[in-house]
Amino acid sequence: MESELTHAVTLLVGQLAVILVVAKLCGEVFERYLRQPGVLGELIGGVIIGPHLLGGVPLFGLGPLFPSPLESSSQGAASIPISPELYAVAQVAAVVLLFMAGLETDLQQFFRYGGAAVLVAVGGVALPFFLGAAISVGFGISSSLIDPSALFVGAILTATSVGITARVLGDLRRLATPEGVTILAAAVIDDVLGILVMTVVVGLGVGGSVTATEVGLVAVKAIGFWLTLTLGGILLSRRISDLLSSLRSDGASLAMAVAMAFGAAALAQAFGLALIIGAYSVGLALSTTKIAEDLERPLGGLYQVLVPVFFVVMGMLVDLRAMQGVLAFGLVVTLLAIVGKIAGCGLPALLVGFNGYGALRVGLGMLPRGEVALIVAGVGLSSGVITGSLFGVAVMMTLVTTLLAPLLLVPAFRLGGEGTRRPGAGQTIASGPAGGHRLMQNS
Amino acid sequence: MESELTHAVTLLVGQLAVILVVAKLCGEVFERYLRQPGVLGELIGGVIIGPHLLGGVPLFGLGPLFPSPLESSSQGAASIPISPELYAVAQVAAVVLLFMAGLETDLQQFFRYGGAAVLVAVGGVALPFFLGAAISVGFGISSSLIDPSALFVGAILTATSVGITARVLGDLRRLATPEGVTILAAAVIDDVLGILVMTVVVGLGVGGSVTATEVGLVAVKAIGFWLTLTLGGILLSRRISDLLSSLRSDGASLAMAVAMAFGAAALAQAFGLALIIGAYSVGLALSTTKIAEDLERPLGGLYQVLVPVFFVVMGMLVDLRAMQGVLAFGLVVTLLAIVGKIAGCGLPALLVGFNGYGALRVGLGMLPRGEVALIVAGVGLSSGVITGSLFGVAVMMTLVTTLLAPLLLVPAFRLGGEGTRRPGAGQTIASGPAGGHRLMQNS
Repeated sequence: MESELTHAVTLLVGQLAVILVVAKLCGEVFERYLRQPGVLGELIGGVIIGPHLLGGVPLFGLGPLFPSPLESSSQGAASIPISPELYAVAQVAAVVLLFMAGLETDLQQFFRYGGAAVLVAVGGVALPFFLGAAISVGFGISSSLIDPSALFVGAILTATSVGITARVLGDLRRLATPEGVTILAAAVIDDVLGILVMTVVVGLGVGGSVTATEVGLVAVKAIGFWLTLTLGGILLSRRISDLLSSLRSDGASLAMAVAMAFGAAALAQAFGLALIIGAYSVGLALSTTKIAEDLERPLGGLYQVLVPVFFVVMGMLVDLRAMQGVLAFGLVVTLLAIVGKIAGCGLPALLVGFNGYGALRVGLGMLPRGEVALIVAGVGLSSGVITGSLFGVAVMMTLVTTLLAPLLLVPAFRLGGEGTRRPGAGQTIASGPAGGHRLMQNS
Repeated sequence: MESELTHAVTLLVGQLAVILVVAKLCGEVFERYLRQPGVLGELIGGVIIGPHLLGGVPLFGLGPLFPSPLESSSQGAASIPISPELYAVAQVAAVVLLFMAGLETDLQQFFRYGGAAVLVAVGGVALPFFLGAAISVGFGISSSLIDPSALFVGAILTATSVGITARVLGDLRRLATPEGVTILAAAVIDDVLGILVMTVVVGLGVGGSVTATEVGLVAVKAIGFWLTLTLGGILLSRRISDLLSSLRSDGASLAMAVAMAFGAAALAQAFGLALIIGAYSVGLALSTTKIAEDLERPLGGLYQVLVPVFFVVMGMLVDLRAMQGVLAFGLVVTLLAIVGKIAGCGLPALLVGFNGYGALRVGLGMLPRGEVALIVAGVGLSSGVITGSLFGVAVMMTLVTTLLAPLLLVPAFRLGGEGTRRPGAGQTIASGPAGGHRLMQNS
């Protein structure tokens, strides 16, 4: 009777139980005793119970609670050391997280800071990419800046994972601040730029060449989809809200709204973007409607149970042993990853009207790399472009930036006042004085 | 970049979107226009969009939305025609459903009707089992009542799937009635009896023999686990409630309670019981605590999004084509499956103090067979004990009983008054006059 399917489900349900307990215990310890963000506790809890540490230890002769499919996989491409079912639940959780973040975003602010976000995103992709490629040449790993291995190291350093920042901003109730809106808008653009970089790098690494037309097509497809989804959603949002409110059966409007977020997420992925970008856009479109408020409470229950799963699973991806032997190079790369994002995002932020605090917050918000960095590194590893120790470097960089972001974001938001410059002191270069003026009036 | 894992996640998220929309649209149509339970709409929606009908049709050259892994599977054992990820989400939904049902059960009532439930469960297993085996002999499929194929048909007819009933009772707010409590308690015992029947039948069908000691061990393990979990949970429930209330971080008590339900579910499965039995027991234990009320609201959000997934997926398991060619035999078996449960559960219910309405409600509540019947049939098919057409019969019986239960339960609860006999008229045989008296005082 105990089929493979039943066994997988039983394991998943047991894993979710352990993950939730660990998430809440670690979160409680971090919030109450260490006075640190709970999400940090969830991430570290994930590292500890993950397949690379405790989770890999056999339990009462039943086998490990978190067996790593990596060992049984014949391909090096399996860069995610957890079961497909658990990974799927974690991804669904990330979709719910970004849908909530979208719902809580101020749409007017989003458009107001759109220009700033473009600059922040471009800076935050370009500088880390260049620094990554350069250090790879500097350490003698790559022969030139356009060597595939140099491009891969650059690409690994670019991908922002906005989930952690969205969670911290949500916990601090700062999603609707100029910094919060800029970070989330920049994360959307960052994702579009990220897939372009990836298209080029993976194309060069695997196929040997890539044409400008190919890159252009990918760009048009991704940007076109995102604009259609977001603007279409905004235009239809009132009708959607009325339609959902008219449903009578219990929980129908909640389920329908979640369905829209899920549908948009799947479409976004099909168009080359990340799942979470689609969910965020739907949340953003619905954020101005009257249904947004009705949704927040019942979504809360879903959020509180699902979202910790995402962060614990993120922690589980970390293999501390993979960092051995690459400590020196890893530390340098990690440092560049940090400097690259803080300077690459912070400097444009300064130019468009944020003050030092605001620019630092934006830079820190763009800091965390998540499983995208690991997936890119996994592609590089499986296609033979980067070595196992470079993969270890990617793991180390992901761990440090992911843990550092919530650790630094909280004090960065608590210390210092508003993040935008006062009237008179503000000299906005990119968006002109008028843009700077608008920015200041509403901060 | 589009790995197999990413593709599976994208497909899952897209499937969940379609499932939720279909669930709510069909539920709305059934409730508002057909004045039928919404769950029936979800089930039929599942049949329509399932891999055997629309879901199997390729979409815009992207392949089908619900590709059936049955066709790519080399083994006949894969009796579930949906992806492991989607099946896992549906099972998690069932766990949440039964946890909620447990929380809403009246614990005192549960113990009061424990004796009645044992009789109802025994009758509801014994009669369908006998009828199934007998008809298999009657139609010349099996040579005798103890022929493995006869035993398999009997076993397929026994397994109650209480999810549908729990949902209907919850929608009608009848979970705490004598009938509601008896049905849920009987479902627990039914599950224990079910695994015993399965152990014997599968042992005979696959291995050729099974000893009384083996059956005894399975029984002791399952019953021992359930008693320990339920009584332990009840004894510790106040401490657990206090502990959960003392957690400060957002949503911690909800996540911890869900974690307990998931943990108990996984353990129940490991001890040979169904996942949902473990979740129900935890809900039951917590039902008397003060945290139960605090949990109901946030759990509502989780329930409204997850539970429809379970019912749509249940509908998806149905392959209407599998019923062709076995219509006559299938109709007879289905009729016996219905009569077997209504008489097998209803007669004992009459004996212990229920009136005709109450006994009918109990019998109808035990009617639906779910994926357990399909799994048993799948084991029989893959081990060669039953034929493909007998599998089709199992599918037909499951579909009809599953659709019939909500269709009949709602009027059965609406027509007629209380389900227990008035004082004076009550002659309880099994639990004696005193037991009957207690039953009536509180109804």
